[in-house]
Formats: sequence, structure tokens, C-alpha cells
Amino acid sequence: MEYSMTTQFLMELIGTLVLVLFGDGVCACVTLNKSKGQNAGWVVITLAWGLAVCMGVLVAGPYTGAHLNPAVSLGLAVAGMFPWSSVPVYIAAQMIGGVLGGILVWVFYKDHYDATDNDAAKLGTFCTAPAIRNYGMNFLSEVIATLALVFIIISFSTKGNCCDPEHFKFGLAALGPVPVTLLIIALGMSLGGTTGYAMNPARDLSPRIAHAICMKGGNDWAYSWVPVVGPMVGGAIAGLCGVWLLSL
Amino acid sequence: MEYSMTTQFLMELIGTLVLVLFGDGVCACVTLNKSKGQNAGWVVITLAWGLAVCMGVLVAGPYTGAHLNPAVSLGLAVAGMFPWSSVPVYIAAQMIGGVLGGILVWVFYKDHYDATDNDAAKLGTFCTAPAIRNYGMNFLSEVIATLALVFIIISFSTKGNCCDPEHFKFGLAALGPVPVTLLIIALGMSLGGTTGYAMNPARDLSPRIAHAICMKGGNDWAYSWVPVVGPMVGGAIAGLCGVWLLSL
Amino acid sequence: MEYSMTTQFLMELIGTLVLVLFGDGVCACVTLNKSKGQNAGWVVITLAWGLAVCMGVLVAGPYTGAHLNPAVSLGLAVAGMFPWSSVPVYIAAQMIGGVLGGILVWVFYKDHYDATDNDAAKLGTFCTAPAIRNYGMNFLSEVIATLALVFIIISFSTKGNCCDPEHFKFGLAALGPVPVTLLIIALGMSLGGTTGYAMNPARDLSPRIAHAICMKGGNDWAYSWVPVVGPMVGGAIAGLCGVWLLSL
Amino acid sequence: MEYSMTTQFLMELIGTLVLVLFGDGVCACVTLNKSKGQNAGWVVITLAWGLAVCMGVLVAGPYTGAHLNPAVSLGLAVAGMFPWSSVPVYIAAQMIGGVLGGILVWVFYKDHYDATDNDAAKLGTFCTAPAIRNYGMNFLSEVIATLALVFIIISFSTKGNCCDPEHFKFGLAALGPVPVTLLIIALGMSLGGTTGYAMNPARDLSPRIAHAICMKGGNDWAYSWVPVVGPMVGGAIAGLCGVWLLSL
Repeated sequence: MEYSMTTQFLMELIGTLVLVLFGDGVCACVTLNKSKGQNAGWVVITLAWGLAVCMGVLVAGPYTGAHLNPAVSLGLAVAGMFPWSSVPVYIAAQMIGGVLGGILVWVFYKDHYDATDNDAAKLGTFCTAPAIRNYGMNFLSEVIATLALVFIIISFSTKGNCCDPEHFKFGLAALGPVPVTLLIIALGMSLGGTTGYAMNPARDLSPRIAHAICMKGGNDWAYSWVPVVGPMVGGAIAGLCGVWLLSL
Repeated sequence: MEYSMTTQFLMELIGTLVLVLFGDGVCACVTLNKSKGQNAGWVVITLAWGLAVCMGVLVAGPYTGAHLNPAVSLGLAVAGMFPWSSVPVYIAAQMIGGVLGGILVWVFYKDHYDATDNDAAKLGTFCTAPAIRNYGMNFLSEVIATLALVFIIISFSTKGNCCDPEHFKFGLAALGPVPVTLLIIALGMSLGGTTGYAMNPARDLSPRIAHAICMKGGNDWAYSWVPVVGPMVGGAIAGLCGVWLLSL
Repeated sequence: MEYSMTTQFLMELIGTLVLVLFGDGVCACVTLNKSKGQNAGWVVITLAWGLAVCMGVLVAGPYTGAHLNPAVSLGLAVAGMFPWSSVPVYIAAQMIGGVLGGILVWVFYKDHYDATDNDAAKLGTFCTAPAIRNYGMNFLSEVIATLALVFIIISFSTKGNCCDPEHFKFGLAALGPVPVTLLIIALGMSLGGTTGYAMNPARDLSPRIAHAICMKGGNDWAYSWVPVVGPMVGGAIAGLCGVWLLSL
Repeated sequence: MEYSMTTQFLMELIGTLVLVLFGDGVCACVTLNKSKGQNAGWVVITLAWGLAVCMGVLVAGPYTGAHLNPAVSLGLAVAGMFPWSSVPVYIAAQMIGGVLGGILVWVFYKDHYDATDNDAAKLGTFCTAPAIRNYGMNFLSEVIATLALVFIIISFSTKGNCCDPEHFKFGLAALGPVPVTLLIIALGMSLGGTTGYAMNPARDLSPRIAHAICMKGGNDWAYSWVPVVGPMVGGAIAGLCGVWLLSL
């Protein structure tokens, strides 16, 4: 790593802020009353979430490799591709960035939140909720989706296939901005139907905290552990797979 | 090939598993009751199948070139671009990977399968069915679509146009992850209207077997030979065209 | 050019055949009764036409530079970027390829053509028709859209920006498969509303001839000159702009 | 810069003309009566605006770096990445190009404008209008969206990540045509819901002037300052962030 830990912390924070600004932004755009994009549908949500991650990668990639997700940092550390000593710094930056991104979406769409009555819909612009509430199966969904996410990142990063190995060692940036976009879009379109594919505590718990700060009540704390623990377990399993991949 | 046959077998298997997980995943996401993506439409199905193949290429590409399809392995062997001795190994890996991918989709969307009554719709999340049942014409559709698939792969692979000739000699990976995505999306949008563009026994027969394992009855075995024999014939014809192309 | 004129003729023919197979294919898929993609909408039509051209470029690019369009060959010749002596060969290949591609779509979707009664809709899967019939304005639309098409190809080709200058000197391939896809999608989404953006005699007159061969009557010959003369005029004007661009 | 100021002026003008032709073109295509793309929806509008900027970059990129937007030129100048002396020349070219692009869209879709009665809808094909009229919040939306736009361009341009540093120093072209397309699509899908994401005086005030030239009245001058001042403020703030980024 060429940059100081402070710079890495700041850029990982800003990258995650950008990710949540764009990601929760599309949820607000498609959901809230009087928005020009209201009811634009699943295709717009899934495409835009892919692009949201891409934007975070464009910003943070050159400085941090763009993990933007505690499950990615954990998985890379388990695989031996990222120093354990940096994991807490990255995760702190990601979680704070996610809260700030969620608040910024609320500021941006303030008039449209005021024009919308449905509290569950408003919460859904900040964080995920299960289509069929069944914590065991919801947990499994988040594990599998995050396992796929981190496994594909690791498998593509290991064999000199990254677009610019000098600058982007590992992390989302290793895929390059276009393939990483495709990866997130694929995950949403194919594995998003059950829980809304959080796959990232900084994209779910952090803006849920932003919701608690900005709005009154209804944060669905009962579900909030699923899109935190599920992704971390999935990321860790992907890291173990990475150890095996690196041995090939 | 730099990797052992065992590694190639495993990575081709995992790559095809990933392909079917994402590909059948979008069919489940768009079809099953209470899914967040229900009724998202043809644009999401065709985009996501392109991305499903892309994900398989990202995983398997560096190790096997990412055939992910017996018709591709056969076509490349006919063209003299892939050793005949490896064909059975690759096909076995692909077929097993396809079965496992189909089972994983069933696990992932279990609650949504239980919430859906339409048996034909459920089968349609595993494998293809013809829009107008006419085995001769359905067979012809699969031949033509697969011929286009394998011919474009071969024609682009033959003249030093692949993105990274050191690592990706032939196969889907030779196109690079982005063009291969575009190829599959194009095939779906343009030639998917008749039979649902199986073009790949490991994407049709394998998850059909997964359906037989996971669900009771209604596997439509009568049609099952079409999306197996059609693609193999189309792939072989494309291989013959490849012989000619390589002579230019 | 490294390849013989015969090879260039054959590959330009096959490339245009592929273009029309995919391009008219999506029109058939979205229009015809019982197709799995029926009513998939403008987004699928415009995306798939971009991909159709991309597929033609993947096939023909390494051999001919992938003009796939008489207006492109004419424009490049006017700009001094393509030998006049090759223009008739390329145009002949493109026009024949377009007829064969149109016939192949008819074969592929035969059962669905039989299941569809609307003759104008069936013709619309082969070639374009104006939204508001006004030959002067329709002609102007085709001129402007084709001018934009060929001008962007030329302007991007002139300054060493092509992805692989060794292999792809000029033509659609000079843009690389991805940007050329984006160009055609952009033209469709933004300038396709008036005449259906033929921009290419080999994509309009040729499949119109295929329609006359395959179906009885109703070929709308009265309009057929517009999507031939308009594109050629637009391409020639773009070529003159290219002369100026090259002098900068 | 290798080209004369006259060439830069002309190419920046043509690039912005192309941007507005494609961008306002899709608004006309999706909005006006009898257009083949009428009601194609938010997904087509946002995809096509991304492609519109991409087309401008393909044309102007090699000559000017493709700012295509006074807020981009201002932001880069503030960041010290673009000479202040060139700013007025670029802005003049952009504003004139935007007017000409708006007029060209009107010519292209003339018959469809005549077939449409809704004056607000017609104005909306030229320039933006707020979803909820609240000048303070609308202004804030334009500041934040443009800040994100220019900040991402600058952050990606600063660390040797541009695709072709020899030719594309800074500006939209530094991202390469594909990532810049993704950036604009992301901004539209996620932050377009409130004001229609003008983010660019040459894309809003200029075609608003074209509307005043081509149509009678109803130009909504009262709102016209918001998508001019907002983007310039956002661009300047992004420039200040760029100073900080360059110091890392």
C-alpha cells in the first residue's frame, strides 16, 4: 500500500459514502412519491446498484483497492490477501461512510420523503427487508449471495487477471470498474429476490442507523442482525475458498 | 494448459455451477411468488443470463478458458482448438456443476418455491420449454442459436483478438468477460423467443435432473433431448466452420 | 489489408448476415405471437440492435474492419480512409448478407410468423416503417441519424484512439466491440423514434427483399428508397466531415 | 494540448452538440406522440443520457478531453487541472453547441412536436423541471449531483488510472468512454428523481434557449437559474476537493 492509513481510512469512507449515496439513492428514486423515477422497476434497481458499487470503486480504488464492505475486507484477510491489522480501520471507515451516505440520501430526497406516507417503503430506501420473513432462510440467502460475491472477487484477483495489477492489488478494484459492475448487477438480478441482497453491513446496518437518526421509529432492529452476520459468514467462507484457490 | 487436469475439472465444475446458480437464479427471481423481482420481464432475464455466463467466465476463465458448455468443448475440439482427450473431462465437470447449481437455486429460493403453485413455472426456473411445441423446429432453433454462439466465439478467438492471449487461449474467456456477456445477452434477446435459448446441455439437462431430485414429477423428459442434441449439433457445425476460418 | 478480396467479401457477407440475424431476430422476438419475448419493449429492441452490430463486428472485424453497411463504406471512401476500388465488393457482400440474414430469421421464427396475423407487424420484423409517413422528414431523419453514426465512427478512428490499431484500421471495428455497441444503442434510443433508425441499406432493403421472397406481398416498396438513399447521403456527408477532421 | 484553440473550440462545440442531440433526443423519443419509443420509461431515459455523454466523449475526447459542461471546466480549473485562460473558450463552445443541439432535436422530431399538445411535456424534452418545485431544495439537488459528477471524474483522473494518459489528460475522456457512460447512468438512476439531473448549464440553459427560438413561450425562465448556478457551485466544490485529493 502506498498511501498512509489516514488516507486509506478517508478514501474508504468516501468510497462507501458514494456507494450508499448511489445505492440508497436509486431505492429512494424508484420508491418515493413524485420522484421522476417512481416505479421504474427491478431492472433499474439492479442496474443502479451495480453502478453504485462501480462509482465507489472509481473513487476509492486507486487509494484502498475499494473493499467498501466489511465482508470483503474479512474475506480477503482470511484468504491472506489483506493484512489483519488493516481490517478494523477499513471496517470503521466503511461503517461510518455508510451512515453518512444514508443521511445524504435523506437530505437529497427530503421533499419526497415528506410526500410519502408508507413507513415500510421509506425504511426500504435505507436498508433491506426480507420478502418472506424466515430468519434461518434469510440468513442462508445472505451467506450464499455474499459467498458468491467475495469468491468471484478472490478467484478473479488471484491469477494476474486484474486490469491494472500495479495499482489495484486486491479488492473490488482488482476486477476493474466494469466487471465489478456486472458482478453486482448479476447478484441483484439473480439472487436479490429473497432478501434484497444486502451482502454488506455497511450498506445495511449503517444506513439503518441513518434511518434511526433521520426518521422516527420503525427501524426493524429485529431483522438487522441478518444482513450483518450473514455477509460476514459468507465473506469468511469465501476467504477459506481463497486459501484453497491460491494453493492451486 | 498450465493447470492439472484435476484443477481444470474442479474449476470447470465450479464455473458451470456459478453459471447455473446465476442463470436459473434469475428465472426463479422473476417467476416465483413473493420474490422481489417477480415479473421483472424479458429484459432482466436476458441481461442476467448474459451476466451469469460472465460470472462463470470470471471464475473458471484463468484455469480452464471457461467452456462451461459441452457444445463449446465439442465445437472447439472439432475446430482443432482443444484436445479431444480433455473433452470428456470438461463435459463431466460441466454436467455435474450444472446439477449442483440447480440444486443450489432450489435451496436459495426454497420458501418461494413453496409459495408458488404453478408446476410448469417452477420447472421453467430449472430448464427450458418451447414456446410452440414442435420438436423439429425447436431442434432447429437450438442448432442455429448454438451455431451462432460457438461460431462467434471461434471466429473472434482465431485472430489474435482475445484480450489476454497469454492466459486465455480459447473458450469463452478468449472473448473477455464483457464481450462474452454481450454475446449471451444478444442471443437471448434475438434468438430466445422460440425455445428459451438453452444452447447448453449443462444448463438444461443438468438442472432438469436437479429438478427431478428436488421436486416431484413433471420434468418434461419428452422434450429434454432437444436442448441436448440441438446444441451439440450446432456446436459441431460451428467447429467445422472454425476449421475453415483457421485456414483463411 | 492482409486478407484476400475473396476472404474480405465472405467475412463482410457473414458479418452482415449475423447483424441482420440478431437485429431482425429481436424484432421478431418482441413482435410475433407466442414468442417468449413478446412485448418486451423499446429497451430490448434498442439494446439488442446494438448487440446485433457488436456480433457482426466480432465476426467480421478481424478480416474486414467490419463496415457491415454501405453507408459506412461510402463514408470512409469519401473521407479517403478506404479504397474506392473495394467499395463495390463490400457493398455487394453487405447486401447479400442482409438478404440471407432476413431469410434465416424467417426460418428461425417460422412457427411464430404462422401464428401472427398482422401483416404490417410481420413486415416490421424485416425492415423499417415511418412512425409518421412524410417522405421528406423521414428522409431527413435517416440522413441525420446516419450522419451521426458515420461521423462518430470516423472522428473516433482518426486520432489513434482505436483499441487495436494494428488489426482494426477503420470501420466499426476501430471503435472496439463495446463502444460500437453503445453507439448503436444510443442512436436507437435517441433518434429511433421517427423512422426506426434503418441507417443501413443492408439492414433495410436487403431484408425487405427477403420478406418479398418469404412472404406474399405487402413489402411497402413506396417507402423502400428512403432507408437506402437517406443513409447513403448521410454517410457521404459524414465522409466530407471526415476529410476536414483529418486535416486538423 | 496539441490542438489549436480554434480546433478545441470547434470540437468542444460539436461534442456538446452531439451530447444534446442524443440527450434531448431520447427525451423527445420517449415523450412525444406517435414516436416509436413513446413511454419507454425511466430505464431508457437514464441509459440513453449516459450514452449521449459517451457519444460526445467519443467525438471531442481526442481533441479537448471532452469537458462538454461548464461545471466540469470550472471544477478542473479550480483543481488546477485545466488552465483558467481556456475556461471561457470551452464554456462558450459548450453553450453554443447546446443551443444548436437543441435546435437539431426540434428539426429531427418536428412532425412529432406538431402531433403533441402538452406544452410542459414539449419543454421537458429540451430542459429539466423539478418534480417538487422548491428552489432551495432543487438547488441543493443540482449542487450535490454535480459535486458527485465532477468529484468522481477528478478522483479517477488524478492517479494515473485513465485509460490512455497520453491522449486524455483530464476531463470526461480521462475515464474512458465506458466508465463515463456508467457514471452518467448512475447519476440519473440514483439522483435524477428530484430535478431531472441537469448538472450542466450547456444541457439545460442552452436547449432552453433553443426552445425559446423554436417554440412560442412557456420557457419557465423562473426556474432556469437553478440548473445553471447549482451545477457551477457543485463543480467548484468538487474542484476544491480535487486540490485536496491531489495533495494526498
